[in-house]
Amino acid sequence: MKLATIRTGDTTRAVRLDGDALVDLGFPDVGALLSQDSWAETAASATGAPYAAAEAEYAPLVPVPSKVVCVGLNYRNHIQEMGRDLPEHPTLFAKFADSLIGAGDDIVRPDETDQLDWEVELAVVIGKPVRRARGAEAEQAIAGFTVLNDITCRDWQFRTREWLQGKMWDSSTPVGPYLVTPDELPGGVRPALDVRLLVDGEVMQSDTTADLLFDPVALVEYVSAITRLNPGDMIATGTPGGVGHARKPQRFLVGGETVVAEIDGIGRLENRVVQEKAA
Amino acid sequence: MKLATIRTGDTTRAVRLDGDALVDLGFPDVGALLSQDSWAETAASATGAPYAAAEAEYAPLVPVPSKVVCVGLNYRNHIQEMGRDLPEHPTLFAKFADSLIGAGDDIVRPDETDQLDWEVELAVVIGKPVRRARGAEAEQAIAGFTVLNDITCRDWQFRTREWLQGKMWDSSTPVGPYLVTPDELPGGVRPALDVRLLVDGEVMQSDTTADLLFDPVALVEYVSAITRLNPGDMIATGTPGGVGHARKPQRFLVGGETVVAEIDGIGRLENRVVQEKAA
Repeated sequence: MKLATIRTGDTTRAVRLDGDALVDLGFPDVGALLSQDSWAETAASATGAPYAAAEAEYAPLVPVPSKVVCVGLNYRNHIQEMGRDLPEHPTLFAKFADSLIGAGDDIVRPDETDQLDWEVELAVVIGKPVRRARGAEAEQAIAGFTVLNDITCRDWQFRTREWLQGKMWDSSTPVGPYLVTPDELPGGVRPALDVRLLVDGEVMQSDTTADLLFDPVALVEYVSAITRLNPGDMIATGTPGGVGHARKPQRFLVGGETVVAEIDGIGRLENRVVQEKAA
Repeated sequence: MKLATIRTGDTTRAVRLDGDALVDLGFPDVGALLSQDSWAETAASATGAPYAAAEAEYAPLVPVPSKVVCVGLNYRNHIQEMGRDLPEHPTLFAKFADSLIGAGDDIVRPDETDQLDWEVELAVVIGKPVRRARGAEAEQAIAGFTVLNDITCRDWQFRTREWLQGKMWDSSTPVGPYLVTPDELPGGVRPALDVRLLVDGEVMQSDTTADLLFDPVALVEYVSAITRLNPGDMIATGTPGGVGHARKPQRFLVGGETVVAEIDGIGRLENRVVQEKAA
């Protein structure tokens, strides 16, 4: 099952992809849907008004999650190519809901940065409230997966020792278009999928989610030890090698470029970079 | 004007302190009140049912802010006693709403930590939506101030290079009891107030908010450059010297202790530490 949140006039709707159609699920967004205990049955059986998928405009998959927890270094080969030891614990940082944008929205390059960078990530979407979930409970808390491009202002990220100020820029982070349930994916709740990012068609990142050091279930266990996870919350599982600031020479996004972040079987974010006008 | 969110049965109410009484303001919490453009006039003129202040149970001042942005090292003398140079930019990290508890709630010491620590902080509460606010606009975005105790699991904070996982424990962070408007404070939007923290009556932290390197207005300017700030959002302005992990010998909170975090003219958090039972 593939679910999305689309914009319809001034509002949004949760939908299920059926071939070329998006079927209305009776909820304003996927977050509201997931807050229902029986969301999977509801989504599978809904027969609401269809929209044409080809014309859809995607909102952030979950517009207002209570938390987006992001993981730092998590691809083994990227950690090793950076010359680091494999860490014992995942590195976590935060994003707020106000950072999220839709799968096709423009990425506005803030006038305050010279180092706008990309990070394609597999994101876990939570479907059940959990705390200190282990094993099967952690697996069952995963509603599905989506794609998140953790757009980062590197100059701000490295101004201080905490990354947050490079990561929480307003309306910077595409997420979506689809939540794909684990039953549709090879590997299920530990999917093994090709992940890549392209800038103007040039491949910058290319890896497989099978290389994750801390897999989605382990991350649900780890984060839920610390805090409750609510339906619609997301865990972005980290990015593979190939980001702009680690390239030689470095390369950053500028206005007019198009960034594609995609994971086979899950979805594709395609966002144009637009230079913000100075105030 | 002093405003609070109190618990009444299964719900909460926004109230104004009038002598010994808390006057109902017609909103479920201070966050809902602040989302009204005319919140100050509404709060000043409300004549709702009174509750006895002495019997009030305080909810988190704003139960579900869209963001809580916390500042790292920000007291000049603490930075200098740590042998560091004064930073050019504030260090920022995040908390999610699920971390917040009320002014008198128990602090549950998680079974997963051996290093539960305190950090009394002056917190700015936002009263107007702003982005890239400067000068007077930043000043006017400050609805008022409250007290926040940034309870931290130091062992988790230092597991990796990002602090978040020591800072986002569920139901760990007392905030409140009152929002105090700047007109009631010496220094107004840059208040100069004594701040202290006590464990079982012993003074652990004692300083003045006049020592802040980045003052509240500067922090609203800085954070709002990065992202919109919404009514009810909070910026915790950092903690002075005297935290447990920097003491010699180190000292951490254990079950049965009582932590008081207070700022003269703003309010007092008093929380008992309760050891969580192992699962």
